[in-house]
Amino acid sequence: MKGVERIGVSLDKKLLSQFDKLIAKQGYQSRSEAIRDLVRRQLSGERLQHPKAKAVAAVCLVYNHHSTKLMEKLTDLQHSHLLQTISSIHIHLDEHDCLEVIVLRGRVGEINKMAENILSLKGVKLGRINLVATEPTFDS
Amino acid sequence: MKGVERIGVSLDKKLLSQFDKLIAKQGYQSRSEAIRDLVRRQLSGERLQHPKAKAVAAVCLVYNHHSTKLMEKLTDLQHSHLLQTISSIHIHLDEHDCLEVIVLRGRVGEINKMAENILSLKGVKLGRINLVATEPTFDS
Amino acid sequence: MKGVERIGVSLDKKLLSQFDKLIAKQGYQSRSEAIRDLVRRQLSGERLQHPKAKAVAAVCLVYNHHSTKLMEKLTDLQHSHLLQTISSIHIHLDEHDCLEVIVLRGRVGEINKMAENILSLKGVKLGRINLVATEPTFDS
Amino acid sequence: MKGVERIGVSLDKKLLSQFDKLIAKQGYQSRSEAIRDLVRRQLSGERLQHPKAKAVAAVCLVYNHHSTKLMEKLTDLQHSHLLQTISSIHIHLDEHDCLEVIVLRGRVGEINKMAENILSLKGVKLGRINLVATEPTFDS
Repeated sequence: MKGVERIGVSLDKKLLSQFDKLIAKQGYQSRSEAIRDLVRRQLSGERLQHPKAKAVAAVCLVYNHHSTKLMEKLTDLQHSHLLQTISSIHIHLDEHDCLEVIVLRGRVGEINKMAENILSLKGVKLGRINLVATEPTFDS
Repeated sequence: MKGVERIGVSLDKKLLSQFDKLIAKQGYQSRSEAIRDLVRRQLSGERLQHPKAKAVAAVCLVYNHHSTKLMEKLTDLQHSHLLQTISSIHIHLDEHDCLEVIVLRGRVGEINKMAENILSLKGVKLGRINLVATEPTFDS
Repeated sequence: MKGVERIGVSLDKKLLSQFDKLIAKQGYQSRSEAIRDLVRRQLSGERLQHPKAKAVAAVCLVYNHHSTKLMEKLTDLQHSHLLQTISSIHIHLDEHDCLEVIVLRGRVGEINKMAENILSLKGVKLGRINLVATEPTFDS
Repeated sequence: MKGVERIGVSLDKKLLSQFDKLIAKQGYQSRSEAIRDLVRRQLSGERLQHPKAKAVAAVCLVYNHHSTKLMEKLTDLQHSHLLQTISSIHIHLDEHDCLEVIVLRGRVGEINKMAENILSLKGVKLGRINLVATEPTFDS
């Protein structure tokens, strides 16, 4: 198959047997697949260190939906120019709280800055952000 | 106001001045708000250590949408009995890859197990999971 | 060589070229070495999820050395029966603070519990703990 | 007492009661102490984002002590000019492996770069690094 290369990797037998057990438990069908995932995760983690790398982020917020000002501010932030809000999901958790997942595209530095702004808004109780690098840093 | 208590906290002046600078940069309007967030994050983090704690999770996946079998398996997993899939967003990243954000509700242990299963599927290139505890562990 | 096995891994050429750049930057001499490290880190991380796995830990503390009661308590904790304190380093940071690195051996669950106790002691300003799994979980 | 300020913090009663339970479990004697620790940790974490911030680090390595070249390289790295090695502990784990904890002082960026170099050395099986910021970023 074009575009794919096969490399050889030497591993201590004991290490290999432990790795085989772990990936079977995780549900992997092959060692190649499991090692490709390790490599991709390593690369993605590395890219996220660079503020200018392009990324997609899922910002998860738990907030009180009685804070009407908060909802306006969230909407404003989602229309800022540096970031592109792709989509969002709004879920009612209970009578007071809701969860909002906002999917954004932009540069790592800008995403982190906006996330900080969102998390500090009055009414936002908890928040976490997940970044996935979408391309090599050195290309961007 | 009923339900709110005011406590006193002693802080070294230098520490307080550094904290004030940081929270101003992050956009907080008051110290109380910033400290409440630290407390909530600490509690949420603690609860996520308990496999039986109830949580909401956003699972973010980058995968190749030409893997038709993968899409079937993802759908199957979302209909498993232990977890309740609330919603999902599907975003085309480029001609090969798409990002899917699946929002789930369930016990921490079950969510983590399912996330492991998803991440090991052939065709899933990258994945991350964000958990938010939705209630105290000791109540659940 | 006895004890070493050579396996083949298929990787997309673009992914491989990005990986080669990253590991060159990190100083690796060969892909095998870099992949072995990814595998070992993955296994070690997995083991640390199990409270009964054996581990070695370095607990780093910044504390005020004028807190004489603290120093007594630290010494007591280091002589607890469940954990074996191997060694410790004490470093003067400035006129008030010192850094202590305590190297411990024990089960993951016990190490974490002790670390929590140490971090909550009055006078301990900051602390972090590094765990390294020393053997497979399933053997222990 | 000079240098200490008392501030008021408003917290929801339910949140406060959960926090009280958690800190009792962790061993804290007072809420002030627990909140001071949250604030310090937050500030220290923030500073470690800045490559020029001053820090102390404990680098933990598991390596094969039959790799004599490795031990030479480790010694060389510890004598590099940008970082000041304060102390190190060497512990025999078993007949093959040893653990070395190296305590360094320097700028965050330089420490991380050196840690990367050490972790990629042939013979180093596992490594982790713990950083503690020793002063405010904005002063440095």
